[in-house]
Amino acid sequence: MSSTLKVGLVQQQAWPDKDRSLQASDAGVRELAGKGAELILLQELHATHYFCQTEDDHLFDLAEPLDGPSAQHLADLAAELDIVLVGSLFERRAAGLYHNTAVVFDRQRGRVGHYRKMHIPDDPGFYEKFYFTPGDAEEKAGFEPIETSVGRLGLLVCWDQWYPEAARLMALAGADLLLYPTAIGWHPPDDNPEKQRQKDAWTLMQRSHGVANGLPVMVANRVGHEVDPSNATSGIDFWGGSFICGPQGEILAQAGDDTTHLLAELDMTRSEQVRRAWPYLRDRRVDAYADLTKRYRDR
Amino acid sequence: MSSTLKVGLVQQQAWPDKDRSLQASDAGVRELAGKGAELILLQELHATHYFCQTEDDHLFDLAEPLDGPSAQHLADLAAELDIVLVGSLFERRAAGLYHNTAVVFDRQRGRVGHYRKMHIPDDPGFYEKFYFTPGDAEEKAGFEPIETSVGRLGLLVCWDQWYPEAARLMALAGADLLLYPTAIGWHPPDDNPEKQRQKDAWTLMQRSHGVANGLPVMVANRVGHEVDPSNATSGIDFWGGSFICGPQGEILAQAGDDTTHLLAELDMTRSEQVRRAWPYLRDRRVDAYADLTKRYRDR
Repeated sequence: MSSTLKVGLVQQQAWPDKDRSLQASDAGVRELAGKGAELILLQELHATHYFCQTEDDHLFDLAEPLDGPSAQHLADLAAELDIVLVGSLFERRAAGLYHNTAVVFDRQRGRVGHYRKMHIPDDPGFYEKFYFTPGDAEEKAGFEPIETSVGRLGLLVCWDQWYPEAARLMALAGADLLLYPTAIGWHPPDDNPEKQRQKDAWTLMQRSHGVANGLPVMVANRVGHEVDPSNATSGIDFWGGSFICGPQGEILAQAGDDTTHLLAELDMTRSEQVRRAWPYLRDRRVDAYADLTKRYRDR
Repeated sequence: MSSTLKVGLVQQQAWPDKDRSLQASDAGVRELAGKGAELILLQELHATHYFCQTEDDHLFDLAEPLDGPSAQHLADLAAELDIVLVGSLFERRAAGLYHNTAVVFDRQRGRVGHYRKMHIPDDPGFYEKFYFTPGDAEEKAGFEPIETSVGRLGLLVCWDQWYPEAARLMALAGADLLLYPTAIGWHPPDDNPEKQRQKDAWTLMQRSHGVANGLPVMVANRVGHEVDPSNATSGIDFWGGSFICGPQGEILAQAGDDTTHLLAELDMTRSEQVRRAWPYLRDRRVDAYADLTKRYRDR
């Protein structure tokens, strides 16, 4: 692993048409690779629209196995451009068993690892518990970084971003950076102060994982309005706001709410410098953390 | 517990002279109580200068028992003003056994609880491991909220602020809000971008505990330059920046770097609303968190 790593991410719209969506991803990836990015992150479920606005069992047809055509497409792209590419799939693991899975393709080596979203949300317009089985907790599943030619990737997905436990477990397992493909947006009827609070909370929460763990963080979110096919709601305005920050949570690159891509240079020696100055890992009270495995500390 | 709670905090300088320091605390507390604050937070070690810049065993003379004169002073003030007052003591528990202890006084009831700082820092200018024994991890010590007439206080101290584990354990034990008395500042020789990164990291980290746990957060920090008696360094510029935020991490009141106090009204029903909208506690993967009690997940 060299000390400087050029990283990029694509912030895009996506559509029910997989070809169209993947072409938009490709365009961003090619541009970033052309600028020297060696690690490129795509947003959550970038090959399709965000289909979880309704519970419709026909939509399971969108799912593919880990070695399906979308994965093969990404593998080919990573190999051609000689990059590490992090994609996101609606994974069909078996009949009736589907996951929200981030997948890593490492240059000519193909798929080197995957991460199945562990924390699954469910609230109006985001009916993910209907579609996605939570990732397994067993050893070598769950919160395990993925080894690549550019470092050990602490890859998590969207709703995981609210859980400091997930980021910490990745850091404790030696992750060199944290990555969050996400798909989050506003319900149009919410007022502007509420929208601002939501986006601010989302941004600072993920920056905080960088701070708490002394690691750089990459977050790729989608943009655009997507309609609710059930017409129960007025759809979702995906807020973009993708960013790359350093191990003090300092913003290195940040997007607005339009189609774009971000590029940043990470100094991969900085995590060790930052952790020496503010050595949080030294002082964790592991003797007093047992109750973190409880649902609630009822009296 | 009423649904609206008026809270305040004092951001002040402090000096080796305890009387002078406590008078400064008193003035702020009286002003806040006069404006209707029912819960008032003082900063870490507010009764003295930040004496941990050097390791000097004469400085243990500053310590007092939990029912010593400084505690009695605060108890009297809380009773007179009919408030819940959160102070901070250099505690002498026994000969050779000292703690950095936050103490809660509840109106006429006197001292209703204390919290002994669990995570103890140690870096140049902040030699706390010399002075402070870490708090006990046993049941009814450690990360236990303190019951008061204004709610259950998730009281932590300074370096704890970098540990999401601590905030989470307080939330899981039913804390209604999180409080951080702190003493943090800059080494004058650091350049301005580094100073800004440090203060930003500190602010966003504590706001993130509000977000992750759906709780309001109060943070009281000191201000002023304090010299290093050893002359080994150019001292510390305490950066102030105390704040009060709501359960989405939204800033309700925020101080600059001068002597001041902050007042805010907390709607204590908002935590439940926020947690219903973004129900993180529902989805914690307690089946996959066991390794949080490890120092490191070595392979």
